Amino acid sequence: MDQQYKRRGALSKEEYIEGVIRNNRAILARAITLIESNAKRHFSLAQDVLTALIPETGNSIRLGVTGVPGAGKSTFIEAMGMMLCEKGHRVAVLAVDPSSSVSRGSILGDKTRMERLSKHPNAFIRPSPAGGTLGGVARKTRETLLLCEAAGYDIIIVETVGVGQSEVTVRSMVDCFLVLMLTGAGDELQGMKKGLMELIDLLLINKADGINLEKAEQAKVELSRILHMLPEVTEGWEPKVQTVSSLTGKGIEECWHTVQVFIQFVKKSNQFDARRKAQATNWFYSLLEEQLLTNFYENDQVKSELPLLTQAVVGGQISPTKAAVELLNKVKGS
Amino acid sequence: MDQQYKRRGALSKEEYIEGVIRNNRAILARAITLIESNAKRHFSLAQDVLTALIPETGNSIRLGVTGVPGAGKSTFIEAMGMMLCEKGHRVAVLAVDPSSSVSRGSILGDKTRMERLSKHPNAFIRPSPAGGTLGGVARKTRETLLLCEAAGYDIIIVETVGVGQSEVTVRSMVDCFLVLMLTGAGDELQGMKKGLMELIDLLLINKADGINLEKAEQAKVELSRILHMLPEVTEGWEPKVQTVSSLTGKGIEECWHTVQVFIQFVKKSNQFDARRKAQATNWFYSLLEEQLLTNFYENDQVKSELPLLTQAVVGGQISPTKAAVELLNKVKGS
Repeated sequence: MDQQYKRRGALSKEEYIEGVIRNNRAILARAITLIESNAKRHFSLAQDVLTALIPETGNSIRLGVTGVPGAGKSTFIEAMGMMLCEKGHRVAVLAVDPSSSVSRGSILGDKTRMERLSKHPNAFIRPSPAGGTLGGVARKTRETLLLCEAAGYDIIIVETVGVGQSEVTVRSMVDCFLVLMLTGAGDELQGMKKGLMELIDLLLINKADGINLEKAEQAKVELSRILHMLPEVTEGWEPKVQTVSSLTGKGIEECWHTVQVFIQFVKKSNQFDARRKAQATNWFYSLLEEQLLTNFYENDQVKSELPLLTQAVVGGQISPTKAAVELLNKVKGS
Repeated sequence: MDQQYKRRGALSKEEYIEGVIRNNRAILARAITLIESNAKRHFSLAQDVLTALIPETGNSIRLGVTGVPGAGKSTFIEAMGMMLCEKGHRVAVLAVDPSSSVSRGSILGDKTRMERLSKHPNAFIRPSPAGGTLGGVARKTRETLLLCEAAGYDIIIVETVGVGQSEVTVRSMVDCFLVLMLTGAGDELQGMKKGLMELIDLLLINKADGINLEKAEQAKVELSRILHMLPEVTEGWEPKVQTVSSLTGKGIEECWHTVQVFIQFVKKSNQFDARRKAQATNWFYSLLEEQLLTNFYENDQVKSELPLLTQAVVGGQISPTKAAVELLNKVKGS
């Protein structure tokens, strides 16, 4: 990355800010790379750029999309993204994939997955930041989302594969949360993670075409009944279930229509702003707490004593409370 | 409490330990009071007593019980507890109620709620520790649970009203988790908290008597279907649904039978030990992290700067990341 910088010449804070606002895609991409950099010397510049751009952010619809591998997330996002771009929207597609390796991971790893969309002038596709903790990946994706808003993208789609807590994380950065499933309702649900059902605003049964069509309609009835009985994630909004085919395009318009109805609903009930404010506050607090914990666990004394203490706790040689207090006192005194 | 101590004479560490092991109920009660004390001078003695008793712990079945207010938790626990005591078991009933005030809270506030059970020589009932955070209440209840095990109680029932995260907390300290509901499946579920369905090992439809009987049986079928589709909390164990009447006693034996089958199942699949070890480790880590965060939020500089920074973040004057780093650097340097 450093070499790239040198080759292209470093940009000043002002160049980054202006470039992003003008939607210079090369500069937007470099600003994201700056945000994603783990090098300490990039941090302060990145945060200055971001802080200067915050007034330009917030004017998009933020959509989360998840689903098990094979549910057809990429083809759905491509179909939906193309339709939106054709309507004149500007669409950015981001991802949260904490399992992604240095080689840029398992989702959105190459743009060939969304070949048509990646070539559309109104679309901007960015793979998941690589490596690190879910917290780290989430921080970078949230900041990338803000950069894309500053660059004028009015619909941001954040995709996740659903590893660990990643759906909860994506739910906490979007306005509306879509879950993609295939037919075979019960079996599918069994494969889903605990708690996922209860994050859903809109459930889409994908691949509702050809011989799947009838099964998809059955699944829709079944899943509507189940969702009807579970608590709502958005007050007053009973999660909707729709069928969709990314192949034939059937249901894509209806899906977008439902998203718009949802957004109108939450804006009217003041939940849109309230949720965004709560999300910003929670984000700030989780950054604080994550960093605090990281500092603690990276402390040399903690690193050397924690494994032994944990063994002693599990083995019943010391009460957990006593062990915790002893360790905290030692670190404080060090 | 201090006056009580003076009146009765302070006990030595050895007196506490021996008294608990011999199941001297007065000393057990005082040991719990010591554990619950927020006074710093009691802390070290309490933890020494607990650490000495840990080798005597672990030999019980730990049951969690929750349900919305009105679901009949107390009458159920009384009926189940009486049956177990009559079988020769020794039953301790504890509670996690983070909403409980200094006056000792909304559940188990007085023993008259379980009048018969509280008088049984094989039973020991203790109200929820009062006040404080859920973390604090949970810590005290976990330690009380250990004291009760050391005193020879072989079935520990931990009740919770389900405020905030309290069910998750109780799930994390028990072997088997029971949820009580009334009839009217769908409506009931709607009133339940997000995620609760996915903690359940055994779902009991209470008050299945008289004119409710038919509705209860219908609800059982309906709820079995829903639970069948949700992910399992205990691998390989599909949550069971049973009807029960604390009034007529019908179903109480069957409930205990299911708990025993469940315990056998998790012991055979090694999940019993694995879960307890994981619970102890998680408990230790959450104690550590809670205390670390408490120390941070109680820091004077954090107290004075955090509200303003939060406002600036929500108002878009500073990026959350920048705000977090600035605050952490200041506190570190102070």
